Amino acid sequence: MTRQHDGSDYGRLIVQGEDRPGIVASVSRVLGEHGANIVSLDQASSDETSGGRFFQRTVFHLPDLSGKLADLNQALEKTLVDELGMEFRLVEAKRKKRLAIFVSKTDHCLLDLLWRHRRGELPVTISMVVSNHPDLGDEVRRFDIPFFHVPVEKDRKAEAEKEQLNLLKGNVDLVVLARYMQILSADFLDEVGVPVINIHHSFLPAFIGAGPYQRAKERGVKLVGATAHYVTEDLDEGPIIEQDVIRVSHRDSVRDLQRKGADVERLVLARAVKWHCEDRVIRDGNTTVVF
Amino acid sequence: MTRQHDGSDYGRLIVQGEDRPGIVASVSRVLGEHGANIVSLDQASSDETSGGRFFQRTVFHLPDLSGKLADLNQALEKTLVDELGMEFRLVEAKRKKRLAIFVSKTDHCLLDLLWRHRRGELPVTISMVVSNHPDLGDEVRRFDIPFFHVPVEKDRKAEAEKEQLNLLKGNVDLVVLARYMQILSADFLDEVGVPVINIHHSFLPAFIGAGPYQRAKERGVKLVGATAHYVTEDLDEGPIIEQDVIRVSHRDSVRDLQRKGADVERLVLARAVKWHCEDRVIRDGNTTVVF
Amino acid sequence: MTRQHDGSDYGRLIVQGEDRPGIVASVSRVLGEHGANIVSLDQASSDETSGGRFFQRTVFHLPDLSGKLADLNQALEKTLVDELGMEFRLVEAKRKKRLAIFVSKTDHCLLDLLWRHRRGELPVTISMVVSNHPDLGDEVRRFDIPFFHVPVEKDRKAEAEKEQLNLLKGNVDLVVLARYMQILSADFLDEVGVPVINIHHSFLPAFIGAGPYQRAKERGVKLVGATAHYVTEDLDEGPIIEQDVIRVSHRDSVRDLQRKGADVERLVLARAVKWHCEDRVIRDGNTTVVF
Amino acid sequence: MTRQHDGSDYGRLIVQGEDRPGIVASVSRVLGEHGANIVSLDQASSDETSGGRFFQRTVFHLPDLSGKLADLNQALEKTLVDELGMEFRLVEAKRKKRLAIFVSKTDHCLLDLLWRHRRGELPVTISMVVSNHPDLGDEVRRFDIPFFHVPVEKDRKAEAEKEQLNLLKGNVDLVVLARYMQILSADFLDEVGVPVINIHHSFLPAFIGAGPYQRAKERGVKLVGATAHYVTEDLDEGPIIEQDVIRVSHRDSVRDLQRKGADVERLVLARAVKWHCEDRVIRDGNTTVVF
Repeated sequence: MTRQHDGSDYGRLIVQGEDRPGIVASVSRVLGEHGANIVSLDQASSDETSGGRFFQRTVFHLPDLSGKLADLNQALEKTLVDELGMEFRLVEAKRKKRLAIFVSKTDHCLLDLLWRHRRGELPVTISMVVSNHPDLGDEVRRFDIPFFHVPVEKDRKAEAEKEQLNLLKGNVDLVVLARYMQILSADFLDEVGVPVINIHHSFLPAFIGAGPYQRAKERGVKLVGATAHYVTEDLDEGPIIEQDVIRVSHRDSVRDLQRKGADVERLVLARAVKWHCEDRVIRDGNTTVVF
Repeated sequence: MTRQHDGSDYGRLIVQGEDRPGIVASVSRVLGEHGANIVSLDQASSDETSGGRFFQRTVFHLPDLSGKLADLNQALEKTLVDELGMEFRLVEAKRKKRLAIFVSKTDHCLLDLLWRHRRGELPVTISMVVSNHPDLGDEVRRFDIPFFHVPVEKDRKAEAEKEQLNLLKGNVDLVVLARYMQILSADFLDEVGVPVINIHHSFLPAFIGAGPYQRAKERGVKLVGATAHYVTEDLDEGPIIEQDVIRVSHRDSVRDLQRKGADVERLVLARAVKWHCEDRVIRDGNTTVVF
Repeated sequence: MTRQHDGSDYGRLIVQGEDRPGIVASVSRVLGEHGANIVSLDQASSDETSGGRFFQRTVFHLPDLSGKLADLNQALEKTLVDELGMEFRLVEAKRKKRLAIFVSKTDHCLLDLLWRHRRGELPVTISMVVSNHPDLGDEVRRFDIPFFHVPVEKDRKAEAEKEQLNLLKGNVDLVVLARYMQILSADFLDEVGVPVINIHHSFLPAFIGAGPYQRAKERGVKLVGATAHYVTEDLDEGPIIEQDVIRVSHRDSVRDLQRKGADVERLVLARAVKWHCEDRVIRDGNTTVVF
Repeated sequence: MTRQHDGSDYGRLIVQGEDRPGIVASVSRVLGEHGANIVSLDQASSDETSGGRFFQRTVFHLPDLSGKLADLNQALEKTLVDELGMEFRLVEAKRKKRLAIFVSKTDHCLLDLLWRHRRGELPVTISMVVSNHPDLGDEVRRFDIPFFHVPVEKDRKAEAEKEQLNLLKGNVDLVVLARYMQILSADFLDEVGVPVINIHHSFLPAFIGAGPYQRAKERGVKLVGATAHYVTEDLDEGPIIEQDVIRVSHRDSVRDLQRKGADVERLVLARAVKWHCEDRVIRDGNTTVVF
């Protein structure tokens, strides 16, 4: 949303935990003592009725950040964890997150991500595309990105997921389901070890489950939408990152809803992936803070 | 949305039924034979998979419409009903619909309707405001509109509804629930004999039932909305007339969601009431066509 | 927006002219006499203060339309032109409009049109892409669409336009400027003989001319937008087909505005092209009616 | 947008100036040394190409704030002004800003502000309403707010403005032009000594000047909007606080545009006034930062 600060020597510090006095000042002090200059700072607190949670995202500039990372980490550990009981993440902005994109046959969300990446809009490395169908292979490889076809047969889902996990392990920091039409098992989610973002083709929690556009037509809604969320074991119930809608009317057939909705899906997913990869999204129980 | 055509000698003809060849031509012919000039015409057909339904709203000008209404009605009955098996409604634009507004304690939807009416935005007569609380009486009477306080005690709901029905019978063409916090019984809906429009404080079908803003906060949605719909026996399941949404974030408390949502509620309800009273809304099963 | 009706035997009839009694009825009658069944009908009249103009778009089904086109055309000529003084266009829905897309170096609008076309969203034939730069040639040819590089050097613009006209003449029904960074001369517009649609990267009439995002940043606007319009000799002054906006804030740099704006540009242009090619857009002086 | 923190012992500190290292840390340190706990913190920097400006809004809690205000002010003066060369404002949240609302005959923006104030949505004191027409007097006084009628005759504008200034001097912290149809002179703006916010009935910079809805109709735009901005000597050129738009079509007459636009005007003005009064808006040359 603002200056990228993704070059070298820029760092991002994410702090969250129980709200208490002095956190902002402590962070400022530790960063200052290490020679870091705060470039931007976003802070939010949930109100008391929501449990008094604290969230902060700080971008800072520190010459020779890589060399000083260990020291800074140790100092933050002492101040934030030991003294204040907070959690934190310290990230070098220059380290791009590595993505695997999962797709089936529908290409609009996939192509949008590949194209934004090529344009320089997405600060990520796309390490691979994985699909249960071979259809989109040529399209993907044109972008010089590896495409792996892992069929998911009805009775061999566990084997397929094992194969997927082998591809992912150690190679990616994020899995993006770009209209991947298979449900990932709880075991897969346990083992994958990185966040998984999904795009759901409705304005959740409306039309949870399959066939949302058909059901939107039957219910006669006047807007259709899309929702990007982290995947959890509870289908369509994970923390929402971003949502948007578009106006429809009685003149739109189900196919029109799908077409209009597809435009919302790709915009919403692209925003969610970008924000996640800029460390702007903090999970808080089943909700998110998006700075 | 366009020229008002609500003066005298303007008529509105609403036709709906099973789609078949020749309906538009038949309507044009009958109107033409009676000396009427078509001023505007909206037509829609649902596609075959939705059952092939036909809808048409025609506004026409016919000198001395009141005097010729019976004849025209008879001719349309013959052509549209007897020959083509359609339903129709013929309305004089100058006959304003008479409204009863039901409220509880919250004033934002009520005041918005009263203001718009005074400004000449709503082509209706507001015949009365009915409330289960006395709080808003002074406010309503300032607009020279009768206010009736009908308490709804827990064990005497049937009596209260009977009293409400006595007030309404013969006096109104539409009941508007402008944040009326009581559920109307199936008996009431059976007997009231006019359409009932409700404003629900969520983007239905998300957050059906009570406490939608609290639940929206807990679910972490990024947009909140409102839905105006016809009331049926199935709570929050009636045909939707209009919906809209507004963006929210983690920074918004439940109270902020209520405040932002209230702005959407009053806009959505005002549009729905205006459209209904201009005969722009056609019910089709559990959906609507809005011209 | 609704059922496609783009198969064979579907026709579209566009009527416009001075508003007067009986037009709808006459159209219905002539179509009926030729065995056509009206599938959908949109009609609008500008109010008296705007000069009392009439517009109608009718989609109809007529078995063996191709064979009967000449007859129908003649009958409409007699009734609509000779008797009623209107203009009309009669179009077979199955005849897809042939497009030339003009681009420079920026690919977002171009690719969006190519993708949508491949997905079956745009009922057109893309006959060629013409560019003053060679950069996008490979990308275009992957879609099996001819790409012509016509350099436009400063002192040889007339020659370049002549070359462009040679490519276009007889081959296309519409020219789309998908971020083509050259101004077309009045001579070119005179000779090209087909409509030209441009996407302007601002919410016109705000920020007419060059550098709209830079100027939007300097002016501190809170929304940026895009406008698709027909090209006329008066730069950025042609009839507007579609516009949309997106929210921005002080946090957005000029580059962020460009990135966010690009998403609006491609959506707005795609809608305008689709609507034009479905004969939904009627020019009326310097404005449009969009059905 | 978030927790109100407008009770006693809450303070707001606004800092702006040339960006340089250490400002966030210095503010945190000074607040910490005085026993203040930071409740929320928003910070932004314009990028180098925009001159490297720094902005920060900090909300803090400090027991007995009123008693310690002078000390804190002095310490901030020393650190922020003397050492860092910044400007700052220190505000007690409990001190509500006092408003004068200027109107002419149109009531929608006025009524919306009065009603939101009564509802507790606007953290302000409405000290008076001033109008060049007597029409809205009764309406205003029903809210127990003084109404002053100051006619502005063509040749006696200077006298009228003098009378207005006499009413305002010392009594208000903000003047809100809620569709006040007179242009304030440069002299008035010089002397009034408090910010003046205006609502302009177009999406500026489109349709600067008079009659924007008429011109929007003639230009055939597909969206109309409204803009709340600080008033400067250059008409319609002041820093923009908030803008929004609503979709319109060829079916809308100029009167429809006015009606739809009015809904946008009142929402946009209400947001701008609320944000200003919560010290969320920082002027930066001819633009604003809105936290």
